[in-house]
Amino acid sequence: MNTQTLIATRERISPYIHNTPIFTSHLLDDMIGSKLFFKCENFQKMGAFKMRGAINAILQLSEAQQQRGVVTHSSGNFAQALSLAAKNLKVPAYIVMPKNAPKVKKDAVMGYGGRITVCESTLLAREVAAEKIVTDKGATFIHPSNDLNVILGNATAGMELLQAHSDLNAIVTPVGGGGLIAGTALAAHYFGSHCKTIGGEPQIVNDAYRSLQSGQIETNTTVHTIADGLRTHLGDINFPIIKQHVDHIICVEEDEIVKALKLLWERLKIVVEPSSAVAFAAVLKNKSYFKDQSVGIILSGGNVDLETIKFS
Amino acid sequence: MNTQTLIATRERISPYIHNTPIFTSHLLDDMIGSKLFFKCENFQKMGAFKMRGAINAILQLSEAQQQRGVVTHSSGNFAQALSLAAKNLKVPAYIVMPKNAPKVKKDAVMGYGGRITVCESTLLAREVAAEKIVTDKGATFIHPSNDLNVILGNATAGMELLQAHSDLNAIVTPVGGGGLIAGTALAAHYFGSHCKTIGGEPQIVNDAYRSLQSGQIETNTTVHTIADGLRTHLGDINFPIIKQHVDHIICVEEDEIVKALKLLWERLKIVVEPSSAVAFAAVLKNKSYFKDQSVGIILSGGNVDLETIKFS
Repeated sequence: MNTQTLIATRERISPYIHNTPIFTSHLLDDMIGSKLFFKCENFQKMGAFKMRGAINAILQLSEAQQQRGVVTHSSGNFAQALSLAAKNLKVPAYIVMPKNAPKVKKDAVMGYGGRITVCESTLLAREVAAEKIVTDKGATFIHPSNDLNVILGNATAGMELLQAHSDLNAIVTPVGGGGLIAGTALAAHYFGSHCKTIGGEPQIVNDAYRSLQSGQIETNTTVHTIADGLRTHLGDINFPIIKQHVDHIICVEEDEIVKALKLLWERLKIVVEPSSAVAFAAVLKNKSYFKDQSVGIILSGGNVDLETIKFS
Repeated sequence: MNTQTLIATRERISPYIHNTPIFTSHLLDDMIGSKLFFKCENFQKMGAFKMRGAINAILQLSEAQQQRGVVTHSSGNFAQALSLAAKNLKVPAYIVMPKNAPKVKKDAVMGYGGRITVCESTLLAREVAAEKIVTDKGATFIHPSNDLNVILGNATAGMELLQAHSDLNAIVTPVGGGGLIAGTALAAHYFGSHCKTIGGEPQIVNDAYRSLQSGQIETNTTVHTIADGLRTHLGDINFPIIKQHVDHIICVEEDEIVKALKLLWERLKIVVEPSSAVAFAAVLKNKSYFKDQSVGIILSGGNVDLETIKFS
C-alpha cells in the first residue's frame, strides 16, 4: 500500500464513475464557523459512493473470474452498485437478498441487471446462499465494506476532495461497515497535508466508536437508526486501517441526524440520505472543534425513500 | 428589443448571479423518450431564478434612484430576491408583506436585509402600502413579473441553456405571473434555432392558458394549487411577449405535479419547489409531443417548506 496504489485505483475506475461536484454554502459556513466542502456522492452513478468500490473490485478480477461473475449479500446501496458496475463491465452479478427486503430495493437491483436469489432474513441464511453461488457458479464473493479493493475504490472520493482542496484540515464521513471511512483515511494519509479523518456515527449503533475504545470489533444490539446505511459493523480488513488512520469518531443522536438532514436539503437544495447527514451532524455538534478549519464532508448517497422522510 | 439588448443584460448581471448547472438523467430521458436538459435555478442565489430579474431591474436604475431604494409587494421568492439583490448593491429594499405572511418568509426577507412593511392581506392594502413608500421615500416600485427589466433578467436562464445546448427544440417553463416564460420566450426567439417556448401551468389556476385562448388577461378564482409560486396572473407588459412568442401552454393536474416533483427529487437528487415541477409535469403528460426532441426545462427554484411536502 502506497501513494501509487491509490493513484492506480483512481485511474482504473475513472472511466466508470463521476468526479462528483463539491458544494459549498456561505450560510452553513457561517453557522459552523468553518469552511465546509461537501462532496456530493448523491450525484454519483446509482446515487452513492458504493459505485466506486464495486467497480474497482470487479476490475481487479481476472478475465476468467469476471466471466464467472460476482456475488454479494446486501439489501442496500452495495447491491445496486455491484449490479450496475457488473452490468457496465458485462459481468454477471448475483445478489442475495432477504425475502423481506422491500420490493423497491429488489426492483432497483433488477433494474440494474442484478440476478436476485431470495433467502431467509438471517445473516446465516444469506451467507449460505452466497456460498452456494460461489460453489455452483464459480462467482467471486465481494463484501460491501470489508474488502481491500472496495476500500481502495471508496478512497477515490476523498482523493478527489483533496485534489480540489489540498489544504483540508479534516474529512468527515459517516461510519457504517467501515469501507468509506477506511478508504477516506487512506486518501487523507497519502494525499492530505496533516488532514485528519473523523467519523460520524449514530449513537444507538455506535459499534465503531466502541471498537476504537476497546481495540476489538464490537457489534450492535439494535438497528433502529434512521441512518439505515450505518447499521452494520466493522470487519477484519477495514478495522486495522481505521485504528491506524482515523482520528476519532463522533456519536450523534437521532434528532441531530434529522436536523442535519433538513439543513442539507434546505440549504444545499439537494436530496441526500439520512446516513449522509450523520457526518454533517457530527460537525454541527462539535462546532468549536472545527472552528476556522477547512473541512471536507462526504455526502455518501442520495437513495432515499421519500415517503418515509417526515420533517414535521 | 434585439439580440444586443439580451446580451447586454447578461453581461450586466453576470457578476451577481450563478450560471447554474444543467442536469441530465438517462432514466428520465428513457422515461420520456427525449433528451432533457434541466436548468437548475434551485441552485441560483437565494434559491430561485427571481434573482436574475431583481438584480437587472435595480442595475437599470440611476444612481439617485438606487439611493432612494426599491419597493415591491410579494410574500414569495421575489421579496427575497429583491432584498438580496438590493443588499448586494447597497440599495435600500422596502418589502410590503401581508400581516398573515408566514414568519419563515418574513425572517428570510429580513435575513437578506429587506425592510418589511406589514399591511392587511388584500391586494388593495398592499398596493396602497407600496404607493406610500414610493411617495414617502422616493423609492422605485418593481413588479415581480410585469416589468421589462425583470423579464430581461429572467431571460438569461434560457440564454445560458441555449449557450450550452444551441440545438434545443423547446424550452419548457412554469407559468405564474408570466415573467419567466416571457423572458424565456425572448431568449428562445433571439438565440434559439427554431426553439419553441412552452409553458406548464396548474389546471386549477390556468389563467395564462385561458388568456392565450381569449386574447385578454384572465384571472383565477382560486389559489389552491400546491405550486404556490404560480397563483398570480399575467400583466400588460409580459402578455404581449407571451402572445407573440410562446407556442402553447400545457395544463397539469395537482397529482401530476406531485408525481413530477417526486421524480425530480428521486432521480436528480435535488430539492426543487412544486412550481418547478409543473414544467416537467407538462413534459411527462405529453411524451409523444416531445418524442426524440431536445428539451430544456427550467427548474425555477428550490425554496420549499419541507414540513409541508408529503409524498406518501
